[in-house]
Amino acid sequence: MKTISILGSTGSIGTQTLDVIRHDPERYRVAALAAGGNVELLVQQALEFRPSVVSLATKEAAERAASMLPDGIRVLHGEEGLIEAAAGAGAELVVTALVGSRGIRSTIAAIEAGAAVGLANKETLVAAGHLVTKLAEARGVSILPVDSEHSAIFQCLNGERRADVKKITLTASGGAFRDRTRAELKDVTVEQALAHPNWAMGAKITVDSATMANKGLEVIEAHWLYSMPYEQIDVLLHPESIIHSMVEFTDNSVIAQLGVPDMRIPIQYALTWPERRPSPAPALDLAAIGRLHFRPMDLERYPCLRMAYEAGRAGGSAPIVFNAANEAAVERFLRGEIAFLEIEDTIAAMLDRFPPEPVDTYEAIAELDARVRREVTALR
Amino acid sequence: MKTISILGSTGSIGTQTLDVIRHDPERYRVAALAAGGNVELLVQQALEFRPSVVSLATKEAAERAASMLPDGIRVLHGEEGLIEAAAGAGAELVVTALVGSRGIRSTIAAIEAGAAVGLANKETLVAAGHLVTKLAEARGVSILPVDSEHSAIFQCLNGERRADVKKITLTASGGAFRDRTRAELKDVTVEQALAHPNWAMGAKITVDSATMANKGLEVIEAHWLYSMPYEQIDVLLHPESIIHSMVEFTDNSVIAQLGVPDMRIPIQYALTWPERRPSPAPALDLAAIGRLHFRPMDLERYPCLRMAYEAGRAGGSAPIVFNAANEAAVERFLRGEIAFLEIEDTIAAMLDRFPPEPVDTYEAIAELDARVRREVTALR
Repeated sequence: MKTISILGSTGSIGTQTLDVIRHDPERYRVAALAAGGNVELLVQQALEFRPSVVSLATKEAAERAASMLPDGIRVLHGEEGLIEAAAGAGAELVVTALVGSRGIRSTIAAIEAGAAVGLANKETLVAAGHLVTKLAEARGVSILPVDSEHSAIFQCLNGERRADVKKITLTASGGAFRDRTRAELKDVTVEQALAHPNWAMGAKITVDSATMANKGLEVIEAHWLYSMPYEQIDVLLHPESIIHSMVEFTDNSVIAQLGVPDMRIPIQYALTWPERRPSPAPALDLAAIGRLHFRPMDLERYPCLRMAYEAGRAGGSAPIVFNAANEAAVERFLRGEIAFLEIEDTIAAMLDRFPPEPVDTYEAIAELDARVRREVTALR
Repeated sequence: MKTISILGSTGSIGTQTLDVIRHDPERYRVAALAAGGNVELLVQQALEFRPSVVSLATKEAAERAASMLPDGIRVLHGEEGLIEAAAGAGAELVVTALVGSRGIRSTIAAIEAGAAVGLANKETLVAAGHLVTKLAEARGVSILPVDSEHSAIFQCLNGERRADVKKITLTASGGAFRDRTRAELKDVTVEQALAHPNWAMGAKITVDSATMANKGLEVIEAHWLYSMPYEQIDVLLHPESIIHSMVEFTDNSVIAQLGVPDMRIPIQYALTWPERRPSPAPALDLAAIGRLHFRPMDLERYPCLRMAYEAGRAGGSAPIVFNAANEAAVERFLRGEIAFLEIEDTIAAMLDRFPPEPVDTYEAIAELDARVRREVTALR
């Protein structure tokens, strides 16, 4: 039996993590659940999975939840509650599925508490990869990727020597607008951007798929997760999202991980690693799918990916700026304040305004992150 | 530096093995080379790679070779010479690339001498799998598959627990006639059968690709190599031969091995395992290939595969009969004595004539093999 805490339990990754647990209940105990403002769903999850701790974003939400929950469950709130859910509930594995840079501190708290991390929060490694990978190594803690692409790479590297890796290739579906030209992107709506062809995901990551900023964040994450230079990280367009990513070795043999596009497979792998267990996700039927397509990635078509590579290579503050600018710009796009193509313009403007410099503490990361967001909000 | 002997050095697998060695000469020493009747090529190979032993099929061939070779090289012949090349030259790894059932005894000799085996001779496991796998285990000897499909499975299983394997899927190009109906197969010529769409291989195996008997032999081999019940071995049509095979795990995650169709990649993997080395084969470019196709396997279209599954399941003498009948029938087809579709008729007739029975010694295997061949030769 493995003890699991889930940060972001009411989101897309969180609910699917609980679905994995629901299908194999003898194997897991849920220690803590943390969510933002979705009190009803959190309460329902807590009644089903009986964690010892739950946490919500605000005091008001926590009080409402407490009134609906039995006495045995501690109901916390705010940053402190989140940290307690991550580090104080005795979990062996903490799934960090908060969206955005606010996921960083709780991930670090889990690592400092000695828990393995099922990492679904992209920003942890993007903004703080240099600090977090060192910390995890020092604490002897495993960072298990939950993202389908990184889980694929992780699985492809099983039993292989890192010295034999020539390059890793992240596949990209191309997102909602993969068949549009750049000119046709000018007037796309929020609704259109949220219609991802293959994966059911949260709003922010679905927009990031359409801009390819998502793949950019994954490239930077892969750099840290697998100690891989950017020159050895490729992106390949693969519209069907069946090959989730692959590793090319020095002998030109390629190992790929495939599956139906169902996040419960990589989520479960992080939960059961190094073992595997029967999955609630359907099996892959390649004969029924019939064909898989591949196209070269075009960095002119997807400037957000180009900027992510550049920010990753520059290092220091650059990935923090890239990420914060993107996150704030996507929020503005989702609120209808800016157009789709202005997301990339915003990122470019912020990377210009904040030239790369070393950033060596979590406080400095948080401060720079907040500054970039303020700048984006103040634009125009 | 690894000491290698190659049985069947002048054939397709043999010459490609030497090409791998040629590209990384510091890493290997060639101990022995054995061939059939191609004296010129064997002499040329011996002059380049300087083995201590060479062997040819006949005394005459050996005498001709001896007259062209310096004194330091022992020139042997016949079954005895072949066994000496396999077991007496001090190789750490013996690549057994003889075609047909005559490869069995020398593979066993190598295992008995404690050498690892780079297995390219399909018949060893098909006819004697129950004896050979036990022997290899008792001697603590690794059987490293050279075949691209089995090498793929071997690579996909790296670092995985066998208990987590749900099924293995061997891919099949479909061979030279994959786009013809059965009616259109009636009058195909030897020349047409030898035009394989993807792989440059020997004549016997190319015909076996077209009848799918080859895939049948691979299914039986996979059964022994990976202790896998036949229910857990699937075949999938994949015309491009880019995915060389794959493993589905209990969690519905699939690991596949991909590469250009170049035998030097799996050959080299058997030579360098558990490490990898730069390969003379080109890298895979999926973006350039653009698309991969998959079709369900049709056992009515390919009765040789159906009969192989049946023979494998029946066990004992049945796979020996399947293999010997196929080998003798392909010889007759290549000599123009029977039509393409009569290959399958011949196998069916022999499986009828020799009902399954236990076969527990190599002598009994050899005897049954010879009896089936005589019967095939005597047909009509």
